[in-house]
This record gives sequence, C-alpha cells and structure tokens, in this order.
Amino acid sequence: MYVVGGTASKTVAEDLSKELDANLAKVISKRFPDDELYVRIMDDMSGEDVVIVQTTYPDPNIIELFLLQNAVQEAGVDKITVIIPYMGYGRQDKKFENGEPISAKTIANLISQNADRIITVDPHKEHILDFFSVSAFSCSAVPELAKYLKEKDVNMVLAPDKGALERAKQASKIIDCDFDYMEKTRIDGTTVKIKPKNLDAQDKKVAIIDDIISTGGTMAQSIKELKKQGAKQVLVACTHGLFAGDAIKKLVSAGCNEIISTDTIKTDFSKVKIAPCISRLLSSL
Amino acid sequence: MYVVGGTASKTVAEDLSKELDANLAKVISKRFPDDELYVRIMDDMSGEDVVIVQTTYPDPNIIELFLLQNAVQEAGVDKITVIIPYMGYGRQDKKFENGEPISAKTIANLISQNADRIITVDPHKEHILDFFSVSAFSCSAVPELAKYLKEKDVNMVLAPDKGALERAKQASKIIDCDFDYMEKTRIDGTTVKIKPKNLDAQDKKVAIIDDIISTGGTMAQSIKELKKQGAKQVLVACTHGLFAGDAIKKLVSAGCNEIISTDTIKTDFSKVKIAPCISRLLSSL
Repeated sequence: MYVVGGTASKTVAEDLSKELDANLAKVISKRFPDDELYVRIMDDMSGEDVVIVQTTYPDPNIIELFLLQNAVQEAGVDKITVIIPYMGYGRQDKKFENGEPISAKTIANLISQNADRIITVDPHKEHILDFFSVSAFSCSAVPELAKYLKEKDVNMVLAPDKGALERAKQASKIIDCDFDYMEKTRIDGTTVKIKPKNLDAQDKKVAIIDDIISTGGTMAQSIKELKKQGAKQVLVACTHGLFAGDAIKKLVSAGCNEIISTDTIKTDFSKVKIAPCISRLLSSL
Repeated sequence: MYVVGGTASKTVAEDLSKELDANLAKVISKRFPDDELYVRIMDDMSGEDVVIVQTTYPDPNIIELFLLQNAVQEAGVDKITVIIPYMGYGRQDKKFENGEPISAKTIANLISQNADRIITVDPHKEHILDFFSVSAFSCSAVPELAKYLKEKDVNMVLAPDKGALERAKQASKIIDCDFDYMEKTRIDGTTVKIKPKNLDAQDKKVAIIDDIISTGGTMAQSIKELKKQGAKQVLVACTHGLFAGDAIKKLVSAGCNEIISTDTIKTDFSKVKIAPCISRLLSSL
C-alpha cells in the first residue's frame, strides 16, 4: 500500500503512512512559469492499493487532487482511496437560493470520477457523504480533541449553538464533565445576549467545541460573554481551523486562553493530529 | 438561449450574446471570507439552451466553471454548451515521464461530466478534443489575427518553429504575403543561431504568429535575430497571451514593435476579439 500526500496534507499523509505501515510516496509538485500545476509520483505503483490524502481547500488544492488522482490511475494502481481531511465547499450543501449550485455536490461528484472510496473528517453535515457517487465514510476528530482538552483540565464543554450539541456531549463524556450549548437571546432590536442554556460558567475552565472556525465572529462573542460571566479560562477547539481574515486576532482580543485545532488544515494551532482517527476508520473498513 | 459568462470570460460572453442574439445571464460571483467561491445565476433558465463561457486558467477559474455548470444543471436547463476560450493544462497532453498525470485529459474529463458539448479555441494539439467524453469542437483565431495583421501592412509571416508552420501559412494566405518558419542551427556547444529557413527578413514588416506566448523566451530571441537581420518591424501575434512573469518586458527589450493577442485571456494586449470565431463555429453545428 502507498500513501500519496498532496500539498495541503503532507503531514497527515506522513503520519498515516506510519500508522498504516504503508509506503509514503515521493511526490513532486511544482508550478510552471504560467502558474499551472505539475505533479509527478516517483514510485512505481502499478497493481498497488493507493491512498491519496488531500484537503480540498483552497481551490488550487482541489485541482492538485484531480491531477494526483489521474497520475495514480494512469500508473495502473488497483484501488484508489481518497482521504479528504477537510472538505472545502462542504457548507454549500444545498441550494439556499434559486440559481445557486450545490457546491459540495459538484466537488464530491468530480472527486468520485476517479476514486473507489472516500473518507472525510467531520463533514459539516453528514448528508454530504451521499453526494459522492462511490462509497464515502466519515470519522470524527472529537475524541482526539477531547483527549487534549482533558489533559488541560477542562471541566465544562460548550457547543456554540444547539445544532452542535451532540459534538459537545460526545467530548464531555470523554473528559467526564458537564456540557451545554450557548443560547442566544434577543434583548432588543440590536442587542443579543449569549450564555450557556443551563449551566453556570463561573470559575470553570470552559472549552467551546465546534467543527469549523471560519471568521471566528460568534466564537469571539461567546468567549467575551463567558469571561464576563466569571469563567476562569475559555479555550476554543475545532476540527477544521480556517481562521479566515483576522479570526485569530478576534479570538485573542475576546480573551481566549487557547486555540486548538487538528491538522486537517495545517496552521500554527494544529495541536491535535488527525491521522489516528483516519487510520482507525480505514482499518475498520 | 442564454449565455453565462464566468469571471475569466465576461467580455467574450457579452460579445457572444450579441453575435448570437441571445440573452446574457446576470451572474453573481464572489468569494466568502474563507476565500471559497460563491456563484449564482439570477435568471430563470429552466428548459433553455445555455452556453457557458469560461477560460480554464488560472486554477480558480476551473473551479468556478464547475460551479457554474452545476448551477445551470440544477436550474433544469435543456442543453449545456461549454465554451473554453483558452483551455488551461492543454500542454500536458501526454505522460512525458512515468508517474505524471495527463492533465489535459483530467480537466477535459471533469468538464465533460456536466456538458452536452464543448467548444475551444486553438487547442495546443488537436487530439486534446478526444479527451472530452462529449462532442468537442475547436475553432481557430488565425483568420481574425491575420485580418488585424493585414491592416498593419505586415508583409511576411513567420512561425516560431516548423511545428507551427501551418498557422503561419494560413495567416499568409489571408494577408497575401510570404510565410516561413524560424530555424534553429546549433553553431557550437552554447550558441544557437535562429533565422527564417528560406526567406530574407531585410526591410520586411514581419509578424511571428503562435498559438501561445508563455514566458516569451524563444519569441524574444527570434525578434532580436530578425532585427539584426534587417527586419524593418517585428510584430508578435498569438491566440493565447499568457505572458508569464516578465514576458512582456522580454519582448519589448528584444525590440518587438507590437504585441497582439486575442481576448481568450484578457490582457492589455487583447486587441482581437475571439467571439466572432466562436459564433461562426456555433452557428455551423
């Protein structure tokens, strides 16, 4: 078995090759003077099972994935598993307005053209898996994030909204602490109060856990309120740290004590490795 | 009939809608804070024939094309024609080395997933059309470029190498002048002499015509030599003006009197409109 790592997921591919005791392929990826991508896989893979690992974000990494899939297929491999640590365009998972594409379906369908099965991590909605025309599976980073938070002595886990409660509940079980979700209450036309629905954050070491942090706006508001309500520390943890624009600055200014994400998107805050989750799922298939 | 223009081909789409007497769709295209693309087509297109125009270069424009194709398909249109004024990745049209992808085939195959037919302009090699899994056609910009060069009183047309001779021949017929190709002769280990194979450029107004200008390196060398050999003026004309890096500077420094390209890739040198060629081909199908 060979593991092929795309530019966006070099570390995950390396970790995964160790977890699976598989060969890590040597991949050349560069740009021509006109900015077009060139990829080449230096190993002879004919007849092999191949796992390609690539986060499909931002756009050029999607194109690189398509090229890697073709290179692997042209090399005459046996079976292609595509692992997408973070699936870009996952949030446009339906037509919100007429005339829009279903972007998640578009990308999923194209990736399926040259794959035997797909694995992704914490898709924004589970039904995204149905957009692939080959078998698709997902695993959750929550157990790994929870282990990290437990070591940090977190004693309350919060979901940023009711929709994300299941994730907080799952983490709280591993940490062995209380969980709740942040509830927004409209005070008047412009003021919104946000606080834990049932619990009291006073003197607690709180972690807010979510699948994606993008601009960090709502998260920053929650941090501020929790601090105001007497939380001793507020940590934020997510699977996919997009940290768009000045998200980090917003979180820090709000009083965030620590920012934690996995390495599905590699940043300075990728403190939790995702390869073990993926490896467990792969081995169970 | 509706014409949908992608970000890379707004002007071509607009011109084409006039040539075809079709409706130009209102397209919204923007980026989310995390840099993901959002597109929306504001017209009701159900049951309509739709022409999508998008140059697939650079990478983000490929993703935008996929999203537009999906938006149009989701809108329940009748027939989708995808027009690709410049097809990116066309030069990686085979495996030059083991382990490489056939990038042109990869992209062609993906575009075909959601199209009934394809039209492109001056593909680098004609066999690229076979990579599409739906009917694919090409048209040539040479007649339009030649008309422009004729007005400039060009009286010699040169191909940059023997492989491109057919294009020069075709242009010379329209201009009604001589044609030839630039021949490289190795003088010694490091020196290469380049000059027209048979003709004398002395006192001529010469145009070098090619399909693509990328870095402009060979073109610049040819210009220098032709000037040295007494050419009165040297113009360069191409269908697809990539002008990568400092290509323009190189051409100008070499003594180029005018740079001409079509608007398959929109630059300051897009002096020749491509829509008439495409419109003629479309009407003939």
